[in-house]
Amino acid sequence: MPPERITSLQNPRVKQLVKLRDRRPRDEAGVFLVEGYREVRRALEKKVALQELYFAPDWFLGENEPALIAEAEAAGARLFELSKDAFAKVAYRERPDGLLAVAPQWRRALSDLVLPPEPFLLVVEAIEKPGNLGTILRSADAAGCHAVIVCDPVTDIFNPNVVRASTGVLFSVPLVVEESANVLQWLREKGVKTVATTPSATAPYSDTDLRGPMAVIMGSEQYGLSEFWLKNSDFPVRIPMAGQADSLNVAMATIITLFEAVRQRAAR
Amino acid sequence: MPPERITSLQNPRVKQLVKLRDRRPRDEAGVFLVEGYREVRRALEKKVALQELYFAPDWFLGENEPALIAEAEAAGARLFELSKDAFAKVAYRERPDGLLAVAPQWRRALSDLVLPPEPFLLVVEAIEKPGNLGTILRSADAAGCHAVIVCDPVTDIFNPNVVRASTGVLFSVPLVVEESANVLQWLREKGVKTVATTPSATAPYSDTDLRGPMAVIMGSEQYGLSEFWLKNSDFPVRIPMAGQADSLNVAMATIITLFEAVRQRAAR
Repeated sequence: MPPERITSLQNPRVKQLVKLRDRRPRDEAGVFLVEGYREVRRALEKKVALQELYFAPDWFLGENEPALIAEAEAAGARLFELSKDAFAKVAYRERPDGLLAVAPQWRRALSDLVLPPEPFLLVVEAIEKPGNLGTILRSADAAGCHAVIVCDPVTDIFNPNVVRASTGVLFSVPLVVEESANVLQWLREKGVKTVATTPSATAPYSDTDLRGPMAVIMGSEQYGLSEFWLKNSDFPVRIPMAGQADSLNVAMATIITLFEAVRQRAAR
Repeated sequence: MPPERITSLQNPRVKQLVKLRDRRPRDEAGVFLVEGYREVRRALEKKVALQELYFAPDWFLGENEPALIAEAEAAGARLFELSKDAFAKVAYRERPDGLLAVAPQWRRALSDLVLPPEPFLLVVEAIEKPGNLGTILRSADAAGCHAVIVCDPVTDIFNPNVVRASTGVLFSVPLVVEESANVLQWLREKGVKTVATTPSATAPYSDTDLRGPMAVIMGSEQYGLSEFWLKNSDFPVRIPMAGQADSLNVAMATIITLFEAVRQRAAR
């Protein structure tokens, strides 16, 4: 079936795509936006059932777009071809590449996670900036974390800027959103020790045993770890810092801690 | 002397401040822009001779601005009070905080660097994105690098987004811009070994001795390390990665390598 063509900026679908940048319309529709070649490709690789794919050849940067579009159609996505102007309106990136998909949201529970005998987990608390959450997901992917658990979220995991900053890793890293108390209880039931990074700790992170079943706990940008996690974590650790007090942000502290764990776990 | 007041968007100073976002006018005037409370504070702490300070009380976020303005004036900066609209025009941040300074550019040569017996250096090659360069400067500051050397720069170190992403660390980390060939010769003269991070290496970065006089060499976002550094570095190393091939960007790879060096150097 040939794709429907959209040229009017007043088209209801164009208006709906713009609305999906905000959380409430996203949640009401149960979908979210996936913009960009790399991100759409990763969604297809991970068998995400894209509902719609909007494309605008005027914005294409390469030659592989038609193959990707055909793949999306074969996987069940409905296609829409947009004029340059119409795509400019629906794109949320500064430099669009002519591809924007609508994907279904999902909810994973802690009980859905399939974990190895010695899980390596990342728990992040109330991260505020979508860009930080996306970068943290990339770090967890690169470090080989078995899952990322977002506690008491301030940022919607389906925010377009999370998808973008994660470069589509959102589709590959198992991700659960859950309340802190439930997460702690579940970690204890599973025998997973908790390592909380905080400037108030005295033990350097790299002198702490990060092997075995283990979860790294990271706090929010502005407030750091909550009292709940500070009180209940098994091992508070700190990252020694030279220079300015605020030179490490939460995404940087996360990747340092995760890769020290990778180093220790590989060296066994 | 009371500050000059500026309310017109057509004021020549307003126009000049907007121009200074671009490199050529910056270089011609020999100055650059420093926006934001934290950044201006750090410039003053580091005795940077701010030439001008533009402020707009309508945008202030806190109560410490008047003290900072007085400090800048005492240090020789000429003051200008702007209307809300005029400041909105000169601000390059999305959320201005009512403070914008003009600082003199500087040039440091390799021979200006004062180094300890066992220098810990970072060399970055042709980084393209100002945000990445700024983040890398923060990482080098947090890791306690003695200097950062930018080879064959694509990005101007005085780009407003470098200043912003570095959160003002630009003023505290010794920074030199120099050609690769000169940098290599200087490192060899100083007896500094070079450790180059590249996916083509076989040795894991954490199995390599990162103690003693040492420089970490990082390539550009798009092309990685040049042939020059690949051929001439003493120790090529790689960061083991799980997940998607491009999950680590250059800023993330840099911080992982720098903090492994910090760990090894502290453990001596």
